Amino acid sequence: MENWQKHTGNSEDLVLSNRIRIARNIKGRPFPHKMNPEQARTLVKDIEAAFFTNAHINSSYHSIHLWECDELENERYIEKHLISTGLLQNKEGSAFIVGDDETVSLMINEEDHIRLQCINAGFSLRESYEMANKLDDLIEESLDYAFDERIGYITACPTNLGTGLRASAMIHLPALTMNNGMNGILKALTQMGMTIRGLYGEGSKASGNLYQVSNQITLGVSEEDIISNLEAVVNQIVNEENNTRELLYGKYKHELEDKIFRALGILKNAVMLTSGECLDLLSNVRMGVEMGIIKDIDKSLLNNLLIVTQPASLQVNYNTRLTEKERDINRARLVKEALK
Amino acid sequence: MENWQKHTGNSEDLVLSNRIRIARNIKGRPFPHKMNPEQARTLVKDIEAAFFTNAHINSSYHSIHLWECDELENERYIEKHLISTGLLQNKEGSAFIVGDDETVSLMINEEDHIRLQCINAGFSLRESYEMANKLDDLIEESLDYAFDERIGYITACPTNLGTGLRASAMIHLPALTMNNGMNGILKALTQMGMTIRGLYGEGSKASGNLYQVSNQITLGVSEEDIISNLEAVVNQIVNEENNTRELLYGKYKHELEDKIFRALGILKNAVMLTSGECLDLLSNVRMGVEMGIIKDIDKSLLNNLLIVTQPASLQVNYNTRLTEKERDINRARLVKEALK
Repeated sequence: MENWQKHTGNSEDLVLSNRIRIARNIKGRPFPHKMNPEQARTLVKDIEAAFFTNAHINSSYHSIHLWECDELENERYIEKHLISTGLLQNKEGSAFIVGDDETVSLMINEEDHIRLQCINAGFSLRESYEMANKLDDLIEESLDYAFDERIGYITACPTNLGTGLRASAMIHLPALTMNNGMNGILKALTQMGMTIRGLYGEGSKASGNLYQVSNQITLGVSEEDIISNLEAVVNQIVNEENNTRELLYGKYKHELEDKIFRALGILKNAVMLTSGECLDLLSNVRMGVEMGIIKDIDKSLLNNLLIVTQPASLQVNYNTRLTEKERDINRARLVKEALK
Repeated sequence: MENWQKHTGNSEDLVLSNRIRIARNIKGRPFPHKMNPEQARTLVKDIEAAFFTNAHINSSYHSIHLWECDELENERYIEKHLISTGLLQNKEGSAFIVGDDETVSLMINEEDHIRLQCINAGFSLRESYEMANKLDDLIEESLDYAFDERIGYITACPTNLGTGLRASAMIHLPALTMNNGMNGILKALTQMGMTIRGLYGEGSKASGNLYQVSNQITLGVSEEDIISNLEAVVNQIVNEENNTRELLYGKYKHELEDKIFRALGILKNAVMLTSGECLDLLSNVRMGVEMGIIKDIDKSLLNNLLIVTQPASLQVNYNTRLTEKERDINRARLVKEALK
């Protein structure tokens, strides 16, 4: 397992990371939204005990109680994709266990008692699944899961019933976005029980051209089917993106290169950068690296900038709450330094 | 006299160049628009004879007959401010004499028989006037000017009657432009018998924030008055521009620096640049140099780029007619090379 933020990989790979998430609940306990903080913290203790007493878990994991953290720190965990806003909403009784390399995190008392996720660099979905599966088994040695022979794993929301499994991949799709191809892809995926959504930005505008493709159906399908279907679909989208890039490059070579090098020029020189503009410029530079047009920039640097330029991460970095303008100034400074 | 394009000067000077132009006509000959090409070429010969036979003119001047030049070459002379489009319209019978350093040019058969101009770097208006005056006297030794005791010099258009003198200065006014101060200045100048207009761009939009201030009235005033009035007005406008810059910098330090450094980043990295965008970006960089925010760029480089990135100059450089897109690509390449 490798942290995707530190991943260099092949410059032409369009899949930044993949993620396996499984939802589990402990038999005989109320769902998180039915528990009071005391009950919730007891469950946190029980799950920690089950996790850490297991001989296979070494010291490279630690548990973080949200009720003991400050707000900014918590927001930063969200920006790193380690926890969800849902976990934060239950912060009086929620926690998460995280590995030192931040590829594995286990949320306690989000929507379900356990939300175990493995985020791995590149498109190694099976490796992530094996890891998740192993940890799932370890926990089950000490705790009984709520499980129904006919349905499968019981979850707080019916959309997760059955396998409790959500598999996803984060893909960089600037050419399809430019070429207005995303609506067609969303339509096709919906018909196959999958979905795609922008990782940053709201509504139809996906800042940074980063998308997450994931399965929607968890019930009545096997884990193997979920994973192999996602693999097939992601490979197809990546092919479409690459074809669109070739098409655009054939027709608009100079315009595309202009977009890419201007982005680099602005990132290296700007004195103020909003979060949205920064994501868009990083996307253009990433496309340049992926297409072999920019040769001297490492992708791990771009991955890292995606995270550290987010509002809370920026502020933790400067150890204080900043105004929007101060964030824009510090973001630009940070990016300039990194790209020097 | 110094060619303004090669002028470095003090980085804080906002006046790029100044120009003296005098209009003269030879007694007993029809105005240019009343001559046929044969008559016109005879006059060209006569003026060349008067100019070059004079002992004070050394070999550093030469005469160019427009009817012997190709179109692109002629357009380039316009971009260098050596001739006007009016001269080009009479190209079958027009010519100009130019000094090797291109500070002096004498158009023959534009609107008047003689349009003598001296363009000098910086704000050395009196030096330009002395030079123009000296050459004017030299010509008068051999040729009789059309002159009326009461009115002064006779010109084809009544707006030039009297002194036949137009004095002007090219000033860089980005802050006043940003701050919507140009309309007020135009109004005030009009009341004083002067005018200001954008050097590039049409209508209200002045690309590159470069303006030319000049006297409108030539009749009933002395040469000395024209020059000292222009000096006073230009100094006042420069003060206003500097005050506005201070004001903007005080209020919007980071925004202004962002504008300046982004412009530099784009100029150094773009793959395509339109003429208008290029002028605007060069203006921002120039402002950075003038304000001491950018320290390692020489103004003569910026002056030179103003000329060589113009369409015809670009094409002469590449020795062929280029499409608009090709010009944008070559302009970007040229700017990038220059700023390396």
